[in-house]
Amino acid sequence: MSGDSRRAGSLAPGAGTFERHVFVCVSGKTCPDQGGVELHRALKTAAVARCGKVGVRVNKSGCVAQCGHGPMVVVYPENVWYAHVSLDDVDEIVEEHLVSGRPVERLLFRGHHEGPNIVRD
Amino acid sequence: MSGDSRRAGSLAPGAGTFERHVFVCVSGKTCPDQGGVELHRALKTAAVARCGKVGVRVNKSGCVAQCGHGPMVVVYPENVWYAHVSLDDVDEIVEEHLVSGRPVERLLFRGHHEGPNIVRD
Repeated sequence: MSGDSRRAGSLAPGAGTFERHVFVCVSGKTCPDQGGVELHRALKTAAVARCGKVGVRVNKSGCVAQCGHGPMVVVYPENVWYAHVSLDDVDEIVEEHLVSGRPVERLLFRGHHEGPNIVRD
Repeated sequence: MSGDSRRAGSLAPGAGTFERHVFVCVSGKTCPDQGGVELHRALKTAAVARCGKVGVRVNKSGCVAQCGHGPMVVVYPENVWYAHVSLDDVDEIVEEHLVSGRPVERLLFRGHHEGPNIVRD
């Protein structure tokens, strides 16, 4: 066991290990071709730089079934969904949402319904 | 627009589209070799069969930084983390947690601290 009692076994059974867990869709029909992979990399770098490795985890995700609205970014545990996110939005998401706790209104997923929202065209 | 008013645009801006969003780690140092990919496939199939495509989404995830405790499964928005999940646990997670809303106590991630919990050996 580590001598660092602040960290060792300090969480309740089943508790989440990060303050926020962010997922960037890099799969499915559209997100990969719309910059999902690059967005994941940039958001992860910026988020960890500002929030640290305990404050946030930014992961790639399989297809979240919103093809055509991406790149999609989902922030848990708040369950906030962003659509059409670009590299230009990274700093604002990090500073406003992840650091200050204010979701970025202009990027919120809109006009959607429960379940998959696949654009069929 | 669809004529189905129950579904079209029925959610608030930024609202999540699934009742539960489950992530199975298939990356990092250990989960891929411990059956993460097979677990994702089995859990997705069983969960959708019981909960439908609105009730649950089961996605692959990049490394959640708990290498050595996997395969890891995370259920949002509850933020419940499971460790050492096997194919034999799939039905119990689906029936108890996803259908009945009772997290499976025996599978909860335990002895962990905030942030990464990488087993170094």
